[in-house]
Amino acid sequence: MKEFSVTLAPRFYETDALGHINNASIAAWFEVVRIRYLESLMDADPGAARDWMLASIQIDFVAETFYGKDVVAKITGAEVGNSSLNILCELYQEDRLTVRGKSVLVYMDTAAKSSVRIPDSLREMIASG
Amino acid sequence: MKEFSVTLAPRFYETDALGHINNASIAAWFEVVRIRYLESLMDADPGAARDWMLASIQIDFVAETFYGKDVVAKITGAEVGNSSLNILCELYQEDRLTVRGKSVLVYMDTAAKSSVRIPDSLREMIASG
Amino acid sequence: MKEFSVTLAPRFYETDALGHINNASIAAWFEVVRIRYLESLMDADPGAARDWMLASIQIDFVAETFYGKDVVAKITGAEVGNSSLNILCELYQEDRLTVRGKSVLVYMDTAAKSSVRIPDSLREMIASG
Amino acid sequence: MKEFSVTLAPRFYETDALGHINNASIAAWFEVVRIRYLESLMDADPGAARDWMLASIQIDFVAETFYGKDVVAKITGAEVGNSSLNILCELYQEDRLTVRGKSVLVYMDTAAKSSVRIPDSLREMIASG
Repeated sequence: MKEFSVTLAPRFYETDALGHINNASIAAWFEVVRIRYLESLMDADPGAARDWMLASIQIDFVAETFYGKDVVAKITGAEVGNSSLNILCELYQEDRLTVRGKSVLVYMDTAAKSSVRIPDSLREMIASG
Repeated sequence: MKEFSVTLAPRFYETDALGHINNASIAAWFEVVRIRYLESLMDADPGAARDWMLASIQIDFVAETFYGKDVVAKITGAEVGNSSLNILCELYQEDRLTVRGKSVLVYMDTAAKSSVRIPDSLREMIASG
Repeated sequence: MKEFSVTLAPRFYETDALGHINNASIAAWFEVVRIRYLESLMDADPGAARDWMLASIQIDFVAETFYGKDVVAKITGAEVGNSSLNILCELYQEDRLTVRGKSVLVYMDTAAKSSVRIPDSLREMIASG
Repeated sequence: MKEFSVTLAPRFYETDALGHINNASIAAWFEVVRIRYLESLMDADPGAARDWMLASIQIDFVAETFYGKDVVAKITGAEVGNSSLNILCELYQEDRLTVRGKSVLVYMDTAAKSSVRIPDSLREMIASG
């Protein structure tokens, strides 16, 4: 898997009254990173991400994330099953790990509305980045 | 015009690091109130609000809005033009005016994608509430 | 554990271009439900939830959630550890399960910024609801 | 006034079921642009924006904004009053004007919680960019 990362500048409205970035904003960031990664697999076709259905997310809040410093979101793993793809992601702020997450996606035949085997061409792209 | 109000419980993620409700959350609340009002005109058909296109919003932040106390959003005016509708709205927290806003909507023929005169039946509903 | 539920009316801005409620909006709803539940334990003191630090969330998207129908969020379990509390939650729309989630919270001594044992009085309240 | 612009990549969760970027997301973008502009005036001190209180926003939705193409937000005017600053902003997507907005800010003595005259040094920075 090749390296994939997205740099996000925290937005002030993403903070909450505790003075840090709110957990719901971080869940939203994971969507940004996940979709950019999926788009990167598909030659940046913005519509392509819609072949993937989000089945679950798991987010561990390791340390607080603050306004005022960029966040680097790194894809740290992409585990391919039959029709599922687990995307592992870590967020860093000034080289400090603040959040770790996993998204489970299912590859869909959007016409049939059912899951299908991830095609070999796509498996190769995921493996090589 | 009959009275129309919506009560909103501020959500913690709607606060920001200044300790009050963020301005962008308040803009989002105005959508909630506006759409509920339009739906009330249309016998609560959830799809009906889509005949209205939002042309502009104006929001005056009169005082801070805080987490922990309900907000009452009151429609204080509905000014009907040919194809436009100005909706005036005020937010109160513990009887204190905190926000005043105006939304300008245009009634659309969604098939033709052009504005059309607001029908008389709808004008009557707006006038009577 | 006594029953605890919150009814949420989906907001139009919480939908996305796929026509359903976006996953990030659902993560935000979990905060609403979690905090209301914690506040209910503490005699509805809005500040009390701040003694709890969110360690992780896990959300399974079982079926699509749509605009136009209320969502009932039910707390289905509250598992107490030494300093941790697992809150299990399910979302229903028209009696259909759409989302299942787990939040892990840690009880904090906010002055010392370290986790502390959940006091017995609070354990009793969680057990009895 | 020198040129100031921010490029924003629309996020999928910022769309709504009408298939375009939701109005509340655009109100949130205006905060991003406004705060970046104020920070640029203050040698990029992230805390500096807090000396400004948002008094009002006016947003005109000229055309739809879509997912999949960058948005360029340009500050097109900065009108200085005694203690107030009007910031004019336009959003473009592929050179098409989609949104025009105005924010009115008031310069605050945060200790006294009252508005104060914008200092000459800051007036010069606003005038020169």
